[in-house]
Amino acid sequence: MKAIALGSPIGLDRLMLEERPDPGEPGPGELRVELHGSTLNYHDLGVATGRMPSAVGRVPLADGAGKVTAVGTGVTEFAVGDMVVSCFFPDWQDGAPRVGDFSRTPGDGIDGFAQEHVVLPATAFTHAPKAFDAVEAAAITTAGLTAWRALVVDGALKAGDIVLLLGTGGVSIWALQIAKMMGATVAITSSSDEKLERARGMGADFTLNYRMQQDWGRAIRDWTGGRGADHVVEVGGPGTLAQSIEAVRVGGHISLIGVLTGASGEVPTAALMSKQARLQGLIVGSRREQQAFVRALDGGAIKPVIDCRFPLEQLADAFRHEMSGSHFGKIGIEW
Amino acid sequence: MKAIALGSPIGLDRLMLEERPDPGEPGPGELRVELHGSTLNYHDLGVATGRMPSAVGRVPLADGAGKVTAVGTGVTEFAVGDMVVSCFFPDWQDGAPRVGDFSRTPGDGIDGFAQEHVVLPATAFTHAPKAFDAVEAAAITTAGLTAWRALVVDGALKAGDIVLLLGTGGVSIWALQIAKMMGATVAITSSSDEKLERARGMGADFTLNYRMQQDWGRAIRDWTGGRGADHVVEVGGPGTLAQSIEAVRVGGHISLIGVLTGASGEVPTAALMSKQARLQGLIVGSRREQQAFVRALDGGAIKPVIDCRFPLEQLADAFRHEMSGSHFGKIGIEW
Amino acid sequence: MKAIALGSPIGLDRLMLEERPDPGEPGPGELRVELHGSTLNYHDLGVATGRMPSAVGRVPLADGAGKVTAVGTGVTEFAVGDMVVSCFFPDWQDGAPRVGDFSRTPGDGIDGFAQEHVVLPATAFTHAPKAFDAVEAAAITTAGLTAWRALVVDGALKAGDIVLLLGTGGVSIWALQIAKMMGATVAITSSSDEKLERARGMGADFTLNYRMQQDWGRAIRDWTGGRGADHVVEVGGPGTLAQSIEAVRVGGHISLIGVLTGASGEVPTAALMSKQARLQGLIVGSRREQQAFVRALDGGAIKPVIDCRFPLEQLADAFRHEMSGSHFGKIGIEW
Amino acid sequence: MKAIALGSPIGLDRLMLEERPDPGEPGPGELRVELHGSTLNYHDLGVATGRMPSAVGRVPLADGAGKVTAVGTGVTEFAVGDMVVSCFFPDWQDGAPRVGDFSRTPGDGIDGFAQEHVVLPATAFTHAPKAFDAVEAAAITTAGLTAWRALVVDGALKAGDIVLLLGTGGVSIWALQIAKMMGATVAITSSSDEKLERARGMGADFTLNYRMQQDWGRAIRDWTGGRGADHVVEVGGPGTLAQSIEAVRVGGHISLIGVLTGASGEVPTAALMSKQARLQGLIVGSRREQQAFVRALDGGAIKPVIDCRFPLEQLADAFRHEMSGSHFGKIGIEW
Repeated sequence: MKAIALGSPIGLDRLMLEERPDPGEPGPGELRVELHGSTLNYHDLGVATGRMPSAVGRVPLADGAGKVTAVGTGVTEFAVGDMVVSCFFPDWQDGAPRVGDFSRTPGDGIDGFAQEHVVLPATAFTHAPKAFDAVEAAAITTAGLTAWRALVVDGALKAGDIVLLLGTGGVSIWALQIAKMMGATVAITSSSDEKLERARGMGADFTLNYRMQQDWGRAIRDWTGGRGADHVVEVGGPGTLAQSIEAVRVGGHISLIGVLTGASGEVPTAALMSKQARLQGLIVGSRREQQAFVRALDGGAIKPVIDCRFPLEQLADAFRHEMSGSHFGKIGIEW
Repeated sequence: MKAIALGSPIGLDRLMLEERPDPGEPGPGELRVELHGSTLNYHDLGVATGRMPSAVGRVPLADGAGKVTAVGTGVTEFAVGDMVVSCFFPDWQDGAPRVGDFSRTPGDGIDGFAQEHVVLPATAFTHAPKAFDAVEAAAITTAGLTAWRALVVDGALKAGDIVLLLGTGGVSIWALQIAKMMGATVAITSSSDEKLERARGMGADFTLNYRMQQDWGRAIRDWTGGRGADHVVEVGGPGTLAQSIEAVRVGGHISLIGVLTGASGEVPTAALMSKQARLQGLIVGSRREQQAFVRALDGGAIKPVIDCRFPLEQLADAFRHEMSGSHFGKIGIEW
Repeated sequence: MKAIALGSPIGLDRLMLEERPDPGEPGPGELRVELHGSTLNYHDLGVATGRMPSAVGRVPLADGAGKVTAVGTGVTEFAVGDMVVSCFFPDWQDGAPRVGDFSRTPGDGIDGFAQEHVVLPATAFTHAPKAFDAVEAAAITTAGLTAWRALVVDGALKAGDIVLLLGTGGVSIWALQIAKMMGATVAITSSSDEKLERARGMGADFTLNYRMQQDWGRAIRDWTGGRGADHVVEVGGPGTLAQSIEAVRVGGHISLIGVLTGASGEVPTAALMSKQARLQGLIVGSRREQQAFVRALDGGAIKPVIDCRFPLEQLADAFRHEMSGSHFGKIGIEW
Repeated sequence: MKAIALGSPIGLDRLMLEERPDPGEPGPGELRVELHGSTLNYHDLGVATGRMPSAVGRVPLADGAGKVTAVGTGVTEFAVGDMVVSCFFPDWQDGAPRVGDFSRTPGDGIDGFAQEHVVLPATAFTHAPKAFDAVEAAAITTAGLTAWRALVVDGALKAGDIVLLLGTGGVSIWALQIAKMMGATVAITSSSDEKLERARGMGADFTLNYRMQQDWGRAIRDWTGGRGADHVVEVGGPGTLAQSIEAVRVGGHISLIGVLTGASGEVPTAALMSKQARLQGLIVGSRREQQAFVRALDGGAIKPVIDCRFPLEQLADAFRHEMSGSHFGKIGIEW
């Protein structure tokens, strides 16, 4: 069986397919899955470029989708031939958050999905959305479920709500699609007019080039008639948070996802207080939330935007494409 | 000024336009509104046919929409020329339910909107949805807000949820439209194949003629693969509740709205308990919920289904049409 | 190892200790527990008297508490010597309800705890509350967690809320204690002045003998100054529900637990609707809810009321005592 | 009628009782209230020391309690002789937050309660808790309701939860009392061992002198066995927030109230994200929340801690005492 593992020292140049022992047959409660697709996340990039030295030797990639080829005893939820997709937190099945680190996340604390076959507990997967191919299915695990959790689980999004999205990365584009599927109104920012044009084609109601309009927080609020956005999906972090607080309505909700502008920084806490706003930290979501998300996707209204697809053996090139920042939506890996 | 009032004894034959004193100019915090449309509800029919003898002399109709023609001092939310729509509970502005009767509901405990002009506190209205005419706007007050409250406020509806609707009355058709606008999956029942066909044309995913399939609770559950519906909008009451409990999923939600089959009856409480389901009584909603609903409608995705329109002077005929049960959606009154 | 199993046909006379094979050592993820205590529930009585003929040969009793005597590989939450207590739904770990039957409940669908030793997954237990003996700990599993779920999980109980309890069975007495621990105000009914006196000694603020005052729903509402109770813990079922609806406030919450007066009956659904009240079916709760309940009990403010204690070999007599209805609080089984 | 108004320029030295016109009789929906007590908040200190120059001429003090001496037409909630207490946001009656500034807060944007009589809408008051004198009642309006909102409304506090409080100011001491009334476990910090000793006497389970133990965030988490606090009442602001994030559990809740250490500062946003924690900004609460809080206080379990009482004419001295920081609980003003 072929797999990719992180070399020592870690480096994109060392991401090469190598032979690995076959994982064998599934034990009780387990599945054997023939993997066929993954997508890249900012988190994967961090691991693959050595931000986590303890990952030496680990198989990278948090997202994985493929076909069930064998089913262990006691498994009733899946059958041979089912298309399945992995869970970012295989131990977080249900309920309020239980995890605050990546020690059990595939491709970080444990082996990920840059390989041909895995044998894992059935509870580490959900069904894939109907009519999604492996790359599309893989895209739901990290970026998709993050956007779903931010808007739907934490935000209780409803039709008519105003959603502000920062940039056109994987989470933001998923959030755009989810928000439009549920009747919300969406504003989105980017430094690229071309990307904003694409977002508008996907239903964005208001677009803003933050290079042109640096006081974008106020601009968004003005666009809402002074009321402010109900939800902000904050993928930027400290560098954008002050303006997100400016843009959100009194009593509004900011999903804190991002570390793109750093892990720490100046935050106007008094403004957050007087806005009576909620700043909700989150990392992806539970398996049960993924099951609900899959039901929503089974409706067929949306599919992830796949920027491009690389074969597994060109994983390093795919990461380089991610680093370039020129993509729109998800970068797929397919095998 | 012309108006219709309930005669003594109350009877449809006595619903005639008569001259009434003009309400004059608005005082502080009030609006003067030139009314142009209403729609009929089951509740209005009850009042108009004498189920509430204390209503003698009252102006009927809970729904009212029209144009602001004068604004009292201190009113900042509305301006002359704004299109507005009335609130079913003018005293319930916000927050959890405060009212358990109709003593302050227009057309029941207080005068309703079967008249040309009213002067009322601004807090008794919200803006009308953009691009709705007066009849369409009036349709949101009672039936629309009831459906919104059931699914969105109480039910926290999300894309992918399964919604079961009973019949094709005003609340059910609104619920169908709201559910589809938010990406949900909808099953609907009727005794008319023709009405089911229309519902299917509006996006219903599964239709069921309960005259053909009397064990419809089980049929719905089978259709969901045994899981059951997430939400049931129960407009039937005791005569249908047992099957609604059969149809709902474990932990699901039944909105109890209906008295169509009576005010009391046999209920399998043990089945409700073991389903761990919620049976949530509700009557319409608060003004703030109506404001949120209007924002959702401003998106332009849906408009109420108006079965037909009667002029105000033919209100009695309109009620007779309602009694016939042949309508689909709302019966409008226009003047 | 000694155990009690349900004979064939099932009957209290056949509940006798017999020799059973020892369960052996724990496998991966499992615990071996030396059991020392249980308590009786209405549900257990139903099983033990043959309401569920399929239970022939089953070890009865849903509640079980004891000491960990061996720990399987991979178990980190428990250590040898820990006092633990069983879970009513060993498969419902967390999140919204997943189960609507008793097919996996100990003492019903699977073997229960009327035995000396068990080997089960660690996830079928939680830690016992500090300073609780085995009988006291066992009392939390069914009756205690039901009361906690009704008031705290579903009801979001807060200080100052008014709670109405029906009768002085195990759930009601737990609910009384939980409500008082959290600063709520409690009304309780009974047919026995002596039991009401005991409830008053435990902090009940208002007591009512329903044999003396048959219109108790109205009496409770009058006592609240007409506002009504925030929460009703409905252990009676259809025979009491009409008055519970009368007693609850607009927008209030009725926990539907009981089948004491039957599985089905006449319910005034229109009254529930116009009260805008929630009738929430429930069966016990999840393991995570039990963990939160244990944390609350670790504070040491309350302990279950144990009416009396029977040795395991006198289980039949304990059930007869339960049938007599003379107990107050829980009937313990100790070995 | 006597009153105190802010001079020009604003300064504590200019806070002197002066004669003002009597407010006269109440109009429709209004109350005339004879005021007898107030308490000082950090917010009042800011106004009184000129942080808000626009307040020149304004009557200070956000908290006010006294006796109803006349009732306008249409008021049914209050009668002459009732003890009442003011609302921090007289226009925020119910529901989710509506206000993000102090433009309608007594003693800031509008006249406050440093006077003998007021005539105001009945909706600007609630009943005072039973058996509270005027100073005790006044203490609930700002500090008390803030603590209640943080823990009970936003936090859904339950017995067994772990609450971390920073310092022994008015909000923290109220939070300590509310948390203990509802069965929670409390840790509290201070720089004064004497104050910690007093907090322990009021039920605090764990006390920590942050001058001695500067890494207090970790210390609190260690004390919880590594799990972390469920709720942190963050009155410090940016200077303490990093350690509060360290102390909170995964999925926990931090109420952001404080500006004591500044309006903006370095915040470890990535740590908040990976804790999946909620940072909830808030300012006091709605009138309906105050009504619920009063019901909780009517139980009689707790009364505010009044550090000392000054007569109204010594208001300047009372503010100087507040600035010294030596108080524990609330500083009362009585007349």
